[in-house]
Amino acid sequence: MAKKVLKFGGTSVGTIDRILHVAKIIKKEFVAGNEVIVIVSAMAGKTNELLEQSKNISKNFNKRELDVLLTSGEQVTSALLAGALNEIGVNSKSWLNWQIPILTEGKNTNARIINMNISKINIFLSNKGVAIIPGFQGISKNGDITTIGRGGSDATAVAAAKIFNADSCEIYTDVDGIYSSDPNKIPVAKKIDKISYDEMLELSSLGAKVMQPSAVQTAMMYNIPLEVKSTFTDRDGTKIFSEESIDYSKSVTGVAYSKDDAKITMIGVQDKPGVAANIFEPLGKNQVNVDMVIQNISLDQKTTDITFTIKRDDLLKTIDILKKNKNVKYDTMSHNNKVSKISIVGAGMVSTPGVTYRMFRGLADEKINILAISTSEIKLSVIINEEDTLKAVKKLHTIFDLD
Amino acid sequence: MAKKVLKFGGTSVGTIDRILHVAKIIKKEFVAGNEVIVIVSAMAGKTNELLEQSKNISKNFNKRELDVLLTSGEQVTSALLAGALNEIGVNSKSWLNWQIPILTEGKNTNARIINMNISKINIFLSNKGVAIIPGFQGISKNGDITTIGRGGSDATAVAAAKIFNADSCEIYTDVDGIYSSDPNKIPVAKKIDKISYDEMLELSSLGAKVMQPSAVQTAMMYNIPLEVKSTFTDRDGTKIFSEESIDYSKSVTGVAYSKDDAKITMIGVQDKPGVAANIFEPLGKNQVNVDMVIQNISLDQKTTDITFTIKRDDLLKTIDILKKNKNVKYDTMSHNNKVSKISIVGAGMVSTPGVTYRMFRGLADEKINILAISTSEIKLSVIINEEDTLKAVKKLHTIFDLD
Repeated sequence: MAKKVLKFGGTSVGTIDRILHVAKIIKKEFVAGNEVIVIVSAMAGKTNELLEQSKNISKNFNKRELDVLLTSGEQVTSALLAGALNEIGVNSKSWLNWQIPILTEGKNTNARIINMNISKINIFLSNKGVAIIPGFQGISKNGDITTIGRGGSDATAVAAAKIFNADSCEIYTDVDGIYSSDPNKIPVAKKIDKISYDEMLELSSLGAKVMQPSAVQTAMMYNIPLEVKSTFTDRDGTKIFSEESIDYSKSVTGVAYSKDDAKITMIGVQDKPGVAANIFEPLGKNQVNVDMVIQNISLDQKTTDITFTIKRDDLLKTIDILKKNKNVKYDTMSHNNKVSKISIVGAGMVSTPGVTYRMFRGLADEKINILAISTSEIKLSVIINEEDTLKAVKKLHTIFDLD
Repeated sequence: MAKKVLKFGGTSVGTIDRILHVAKIIKKEFVAGNEVIVIVSAMAGKTNELLEQSKNISKNFNKRELDVLLTSGEQVTSALLAGALNEIGVNSKSWLNWQIPILTEGKNTNARIINMNISKINIFLSNKGVAIIPGFQGISKNGDITTIGRGGSDATAVAAAKIFNADSCEIYTDVDGIYSSDPNKIPVAKKIDKISYDEMLELSSLGAKVMQPSAVQTAMMYNIPLEVKSTFTDRDGTKIFSEESIDYSKSVTGVAYSKDDAKITMIGVQDKPGVAANIFEPLGKNQVNVDMVIQNISLDQKTTDITFTIKRDDLLKTIDILKKNKNVKYDTMSHNNKVSKISIVGAGMVSTPGVTYRMFRGLADEKINILAISTSEIKLSVIINEEDTLKAVKKLHTIFDLD
């Protein structure tokens, strides 16, 4: 017997038929003797529908009321799933944010879970009941409803796994695990059986939208084993552990890429303390999300070149902000709005010599021009022309034995 | 300055545009210096949609979870309306069932409001805030979500008016008041300016679906003045008072009718104590709603004839139950599944001689056959053949000076 947290995402509970199917998955775990705590998302599309309604009322809809509005989505799923379980003979109850309560701190629409009162639920579990908890939400100390950001049901699941001291936390979704690259584009991409938290974080920040990164981070912090698996097949998913638990036979675990990027290079920037802050502060204030930043060593000690990438949609806005910025002196600015970022990720990279060399050699063999490079402990990213994206991903996938 | 409870029904908040319109009505009352407490229903169609989802999961959906499910509808409207008010510069907050809390007793799906904790809301009101409260719901003593039956937002409004000691309770809906008969069928029907609680109760139990009868009853019990008015026009609605406050210039206030009725007559029923209970108990247990019951005096002191009406849909089921009932002896049973009930209603009737005679004479003039008669203090109902319905209503409307 184990204590399990099962989390079902929006597509997994997107229709009544799927909710009935999810109830069967839960029943199987329950009948096997496990104590089961279920976290649910809103039905697929529901949160966007509610958000759309709020936008039709105000572009700047009151954030307290937005949280009241959005949390209704998970409330509906919780009730429907609890009803479906009772229908098939499993004693089940929904436990809403305020009934537990799930205590959060921080602002509306962007709060953090700090605790759950689990004593009543634990009694219910030991009396052979399945508890259904709405994800994505909680209440503040003064009793307002709060939400914890899009994709927040993952965070609720990980928090529940920690607070209930669960043996596992299973994230049911519409894909059957984490892949070495995007399986829709790279047919030879393979499902990864085991992956470290670090690698998962790099992959998810690079476009693998399977789990919310901050939830993975929390799991890493408390060493909570995760498993990402499909609601629609019986196959094993991808297990996410700490690095120590993983035997690295391969230096590189996956190849990720992001699209819709743009690159800006500022040449001859006057190099003095605070110049980077002067450049990026106005961008941040205007909601421009800067991804990679590369600053070359200045040869003359007086000027430097700074390259950074942003989302393509933000390009015109960003150029405009930079041109109006009186606090930064530079010679010229160039931009390229058709670039993409390719990354190889692997916790084994750091201990495997030659990974960097092999990546650059592979891209050169394909005559792919590297526009910028950035590295971290377990990741190596390059910016290339967008047209070369798939060619590059396939080549790297082959080079690092992922096919 | 007055303290007002304003209640907006499902069609009044059925779209985003209508919610924006309702926000303007509320702002007008607020700017005029009133303290405003708003009760909202779910957006039109929402409750049925959620109910449908539950039925697709189970014909016998868990009642606790059904209440969790259904209450999400009013939560959504509350948040959207509070957001709309803030957008037009009116400080407003939604107060959910558990945040107040609205305390109820009784079973899930059929609870009664017993109290609201209004201290926090009163502080909010005096700090120039408009409070939005979801109708139809509350919580039980052990913290479960409860609902108070379909149309329950009216009951919430009346309960709020009582507990807040409000000066008025205005029910905004999609009709502009109570009419002397159905204006869609009887073009000469007129809006009633003032009506007593009793008359309103009789009219609503007879098919005028403007307000939930039990809410009118509560208003009567605590003498809370009501006004039913349209969300979509500026005109005055119908004011509902105690009888003493109304000057009766007319003996009859309105003519109501119900359709889809069926009549059953049992002839030669052995007349002994408890026979009526023996007939009607099995019907009640099988959810057959019996409306009128007429028992003729038995001439031979041994047998009696009993006539009663039911909804037409229940006719076959009712006959079946009666035939299987071993506790009741009778000679023959006849039925008529094409009847309707016509009622004249008026608190002034009791003090006006000849109302009964004029009604029967009017129907006779139109050669309308009366199949059964039933009377109360302020109501006189007859059962006639369905085909004569409109002819009868028009005739009575004219006779009693309602055109």
